[in-house]
Amino acid sequence: MGNDSDDITKHWDGTLIPGRDGLMMEFSPMTKLIVDGFKASAVSADIRGKGDGRLDMGLIVAKRGADAAGVFTTNTMAAAPVRICRDRIGDEKVAAILVNSGNANSMTGQAGEQDALHLCSALADRLMAQETAVLPCSTGVIGERLPVERMEEALDSLIAGLSEGGLENFTRSIMTTDTVPKTSKSEAKLELGTATVVGIAKGSGMIAPNMATMLAFILTDAVVDVEWLRNILNDCVKDTFNTISVDGDMSTNDTVLLLASGSGPPVRTWQDNGAISEAIHQVCRELAAMIIGDGEGARKVVNVKVSGAWEVEDARKIARTVADSLLVKTAMAGEDPNWGRIAAAIGRSGVEINPEDISLQIGEVKILEKGEIVEGYDEKRATDVMKRQQYDIRITMGDDDCEATVTTCDLTEEYVRINAGYRS
Amino acid sequence: MGNDSDDITKHWDGTLIPGRDGLMMEFSPMTKLIVDGFKASAVSADIRGKGDGRLDMGLIVAKRGADAAGVFTTNTMAAAPVRICRDRIGDEKVAAILVNSGNANSMTGQAGEQDALHLCSALADRLMAQETAVLPCSTGVIGERLPVERMEEALDSLIAGLSEGGLENFTRSIMTTDTVPKTSKSEAKLELGTATVVGIAKGSGMIAPNMATMLAFILTDAVVDVEWLRNILNDCVKDTFNTISVDGDMSTNDTVLLLASGSGPPVRTWQDNGAISEAIHQVCRELAAMIIGDGEGARKVVNVKVSGAWEVEDARKIARTVADSLLVKTAMAGEDPNWGRIAAAIGRSGVEINPEDISLQIGEVKILEKGEIVEGYDEKRATDVMKRQQYDIRITMGDDDCEATVTTCDLTEEYVRINAGYRS
Repeated sequence: MGNDSDDITKHWDGTLIPGRDGLMMEFSPMTKLIVDGFKASAVSADIRGKGDGRLDMGLIVAKRGADAAGVFTTNTMAAAPVRICRDRIGDEKVAAILVNSGNANSMTGQAGEQDALHLCSALADRLMAQETAVLPCSTGVIGERLPVERMEEALDSLIAGLSEGGLENFTRSIMTTDTVPKTSKSEAKLELGTATVVGIAKGSGMIAPNMATMLAFILTDAVVDVEWLRNILNDCVKDTFNTISVDGDMSTNDTVLLLASGSGPPVRTWQDNGAISEAIHQVCRELAAMIIGDGEGARKVVNVKVSGAWEVEDARKIARTVADSLLVKTAMAGEDPNWGRIAAAIGRSGVEINPEDISLQIGEVKILEKGEIVEGYDEKRATDVMKRQQYDIRITMGDDDCEATVTTCDLTEEYVRINAGYRS
Repeated sequence: MGNDSDDITKHWDGTLIPGRDGLMMEFSPMTKLIVDGFKASAVSADIRGKGDGRLDMGLIVAKRGADAAGVFTTNTMAAAPVRICRDRIGDEKVAAILVNSGNANSMTGQAGEQDALHLCSALADRLMAQETAVLPCSTGVIGERLPVERMEEALDSLIAGLSEGGLENFTRSIMTTDTVPKTSKSEAKLELGTATVVGIAKGSGMIAPNMATMLAFILTDAVVDVEWLRNILNDCVKDTFNTISVDGDMSTNDTVLLLASGSGPPVRTWQDNGAISEAIHQVCRELAAMIIGDGEGARKVVNVKVSGAWEVEDARKIARTVADSLLVKTAMAGEDPNWGRIAAAIGRSGVEINPEDISLQIGEVKILEKGEIVEGYDEKRATDVMKRQQYDIRITMGDDDCEATVTTCDLTEEYVRINAGYRS
């Protein structure tokens, strides 16, 4: 797919990464990953028992407690840590997030829940915090018990290692099949000062060969009403993480947490709320784009944009059906403007449509106009668009106002290789 | 995947092919493909304009007219021939089915419909039949107009070539990415004689790189009430073709037609109805198994069997979500008993379940029993099952009575290679 000039940049120091609207966005270098009111650290607890020294446990502590909001997988097989987080996220302040990679603590029944509760309690003791103020997150192999003893032993060095700059190591400790750490930073100008928003995420396949999950942690120093936090996060996730699709699978562990330490300026007005909300959106958008760009085996990022729908839900359904179609995704990999596959996916989306209302374009090349092939349509030009690392597929359903975008990646032989590989 | 002893047999002369219940079924050799009351033929009309002499037009004629039933794609972008078939299938007798490969006549608007109508009418003239008694079917590239002139010229030789044994060539003329022709034959012992049922199908990916569609034609010589025919076909398709999944995509051209020539014995009693229905079921089951066995790039056939559900629809949803999951299908390809992926797929199926009710086994190896990992579960044994060419994944949801099976295949790098390849 060699096109070096606009290769998806996978470095993480002050480089450019592709944004959702085809723009390149500046990517915050790790050195700036500091948010007032939070410390973090990471250690190797040898969770896979391989003795390879890999960072696999991470800790974020809100020194004076943080207001928190969370969004979790809707998978009914939700893992133990997700069930615990869901219960705990409420009106109480959060003292810490304890994360591990290498083991998802999923499908481990009551015993797995006890394991997570035990670790949270052991950490809370050491931090002199409320037991219920610790949120656990896990990502990794499904169906195995956590090595609780080794993990408990690691708690002291995790706490000893806490520092304001510790988020960098934390970020590395949650990586599984990710090829790059994913972080983003933004600022919000509030009436009484500037608030910082930092985001950290992991995820490439929804469930990678050994591992599971998308995890994202958004931290801000702003003082925000907890009800506002919840609304901002819900909107944000709907517009960002929920609009990406690597393989249509949804893990048992997906978790997005938003914490506000309250060490910075307050969000007091609607303008302030708008500013902090926009900053959080931007961070989530950037993280979502990074997850797609790092999709297992992916070489291209494609925005499927559907407009002209009667209801947003219709637009979303069509965008998702096209974005998840194996045949569309393999055509992307083959740089083949086989638009019949797109039309077929639209047709089976379950949305009532009139084929004669459908317009379709790939990049700037119009293919269908109101159900008819555009005169002079030149397949060669569509192929040229598909050779790019990033482009849009635009589908217009009619003259109505609703629209939706789902961002996806191509399906390559590499994806199959990664996911068909034996767990080792 | 080398396991020559139980390789999926892809020959088509009296050999064994894998059946839906793990049994090998005897496969009828082509020479017996004769049904009283029908003649067939095939020619090369050079539909792709490559001059390669490939059979690409086929004709089946019911000498004295046939009662007919049809089931069609629910894709709202249904192709022109599907729209015409849907309109025409009714109480009138069918005189002929005119099929072509190489061009799906899909997304071709009003003009495409006119093309198909014109060809039907030209054929009806030559056969001295009612224009509306001709059913058109197309499979192939989407979005291109049919080469109507060349096709019309081919009609005379199609008619001249009609013979009772012509179904063999007909079968070849509808192949696209299929690697083997797919036919099946069965008999029904009726009160007043023995009726014959013959089935012919094409399809491997739901939409192959250049081509589209699953087409199936079931012919019988029995005299059957047209209302019964419809009921039998609807039941049959639900139990067979609708329970297979190569890639979850649904074409704009999928069509199953059941024709009864009335040249054989009558279906008069409920026993007769049961017998002809079973024969038709068997033929459809066999064709469906062949389509899955010939799935693009597929090396394994896996039955996902869900039982213990409160409603059949729930069982079906779970079976389909597991069968369509990229992560489950790549694990099949990798012969990796990564059952966490199965659990995760169950969890996102949208069916209300209690994780503690779920039992899971691969082949004869039990993994989960009521939500807990079975003591002494040996991953090695599950791996051995997955090395087979065919096996079952059994999921029990609870103690209720409803169940469903979806048959799927593994997702290999070869699938991506086939579908990412440029159209040529």
